[in-house]
Amino acid sequence: MTHGLTIAFHGQNAANFRAGFERLIEPGHTVLDLSDDLSGPGEREAYARADVIVGIRLDDTLPAPAAARLFHAPAAGTDAIDTRRLPATTALCNCHGHEQAIAEYVFAALLQRHVPLAVADADLRQDRWTWWAGRPGALRSELGGQTLGLLGYGHIAQALAPRARAFGMRVHAANRSPVRDPQVHQAWSLTELTPFLAGLDVLVVTLPLTPQTQGLVNADLLSALPRGAWVINVGRGPVIDEAALHGALSSGHLGGAVIDTWYQYPNAERSTCAPSRLDFRTLPNVTMTPHMSGWTEGTVRRRQQTIADNIARLVRGHPLDHVVRAATPA
Amino acid sequence: MTHGLTIAFHGQNAANFRAGFERLIEPGHTVLDLSDDLSGPGEREAYARADVIVGIRLDDTLPAPAAARLFHAPAAGTDAIDTRRLPATTALCNCHGHEQAIAEYVFAALLQRHVPLAVADADLRQDRWTWWAGRPGALRSELGGQTLGLLGYGHIAQALAPRARAFGMRVHAANRSPVRDPQVHQAWSLTELTPFLAGLDVLVVTLPLTPQTQGLVNADLLSALPRGAWVINVGRGPVIDEAALHGALSSGHLGGAVIDTWYQYPNAERSTCAPSRLDFRTLPNVTMTPHMSGWTEGTVRRRQQTIADNIARLVRGHPLDHVVRAATPA
Repeated sequence: MTHGLTIAFHGQNAANFRAGFERLIEPGHTVLDLSDDLSGPGEREAYARADVIVGIRLDDTLPAPAAARLFHAPAAGTDAIDTRRLPATTALCNCHGHEQAIAEYVFAALLQRHVPLAVADADLRQDRWTWWAGRPGALRSELGGQTLGLLGYGHIAQALAPRARAFGMRVHAANRSPVRDPQVHQAWSLTELTPFLAGLDVLVVTLPLTPQTQGLVNADLLSALPRGAWVINVGRGPVIDEAALHGALSSGHLGGAVIDTWYQYPNAERSTCAPSRLDFRTLPNVTMTPHMSGWTEGTVRRRQQTIADNIARLVRGHPLDHVVRAATPA
Repeated sequence: MTHGLTIAFHGQNAANFRAGFERLIEPGHTVLDLSDDLSGPGEREAYARADVIVGIRLDDTLPAPAAARLFHAPAAGTDAIDTRRLPATTALCNCHGHEQAIAEYVFAALLQRHVPLAVADADLRQDRWTWWAGRPGALRSELGGQTLGLLGYGHIAQALAPRARAFGMRVHAANRSPVRDPQVHQAWSLTELTPFLAGLDVLVVTLPLTPQTQGLVNADLLSALPRGAWVINVGRGPVIDEAALHGALSSGHLGGAVIDTWYQYPNAERSTCAPSRLDFRTLPNVTMTPHMSGWTEGTVRRRQQTIADNIARLVRGHPLDHVVRAATPA
């Protein structure tokens, strides 16, 4: 094949999407595996010469991807890709395909509040029928009939809405652009957050982090939620003000929270750290998870397919999908 | 009101449906609370004279409910009600309204296999980012794309099917009568269980216990499930052969099981007991719960409404709903 491209998977994150990738693309392409710091022999040259780069980072420690026609993030977020270093002739694309996984995480979190499987199991293994139907104190609450509020109505929220409807929940949404989805019972703009929040049993934050969303959910808005409401954050940590969230949880205004996206992460300088400068870990009404909600075999498979499909489009000169920044014609 | 009825709530189980019941019925009726053994002063006479009895048990320790026009079980099962002791002029009715609760239990059980919230939380509280997206070993499986098999297609299965569809599962069903529900991808009769089982990731048993269903799921049928499949029993324990289930779990043929309905229960003679004569409690791949799946505030509310609606129908001479055995005209 004369149009064989060189496709470079750059770094450990991209390597997660590497297994079986050849089966998804036409024969004749060359797939390279490059290390994060490109310290291996010839890696910097290979990076600079690749036709396609799959990676989540582009900064001044890396050579310019001078030959790349496509820089494909295998992730939704492209904030670690410095587009000033990307040639104008290089298209930047991203991937979704995590929304089904995140929806499963959110419903696992929602349902565990109502169905005490672990405690019931530990008890029955000792012949204690604690949660037996009809026993005093055994009556559980239900998810059905509750009102779920989706802050942001993108891919993730659109995957949550039909699942919530199937469970008999009411679905409310607040979004920058108007929401016209029959799955949503009632919608608000981002300037009407107080009445939106006042009607919720559970708020799910699905917003990305932008200058407009940073700290958007502040102490005032958290106090607009009914006492006892729950908050789930699968968007980005700092969309909710860190101190305000800790305060609303420790005061008991919130019933609890399930937090997957945080304020501090391990990085090149520190192999581990607490997820917040505040002491969430001593709060009993919080489930703390390490930014895991979207990370499933299905997400990897769907993103591999997105990348492979875009490579096939590139070869044929067809318009790319999931474009974050288009290439200008060479 | 001249048509005021005497409504007797008999025993501890019925008492669960008592709170707020007056608000659901018209004024003028009299509601009595009677103990299980009717040992209080006048209780046996009151039982014999009641127009409506709400209870789950009728046996030879109790007086004949000679005046009752309606015997209403606040439960689906009426097997502890000896209909030979029920006057021919007494209608026997039951209640559903537990199917939403059971569906929440089943999906909590299904999702907990894929989303390790408790482990991730315990780890992150110690700054261990074990399940962080992209970390080796952090990749989770998904419920979406799996095939759910519903053995029996009554109220419970019909509540499970749309929820499973919303999660992107394939839904197969096997039932005595033909299943014509667009929620079901493929259906089998009860004489075609081997091919039905061979295609499943998860089998949910929703069948009631009858002479035809007792031991229906035997060792042969369990071995027809693919290796690694899961079994959830929210029907009745003995629909699955006890020794065969224990064997398929301890051999590793089954990936695991979530068992809510059992082979042995506490009763008047024993305040507690193991749920099986076999040692399920040492099996690591089983979640054991004490017949709790349907027991929620929503179930109680829906069943109270069913009973109140039937009392209103009785007063008006309208046909009753949820009739298990009709009354012959007096």
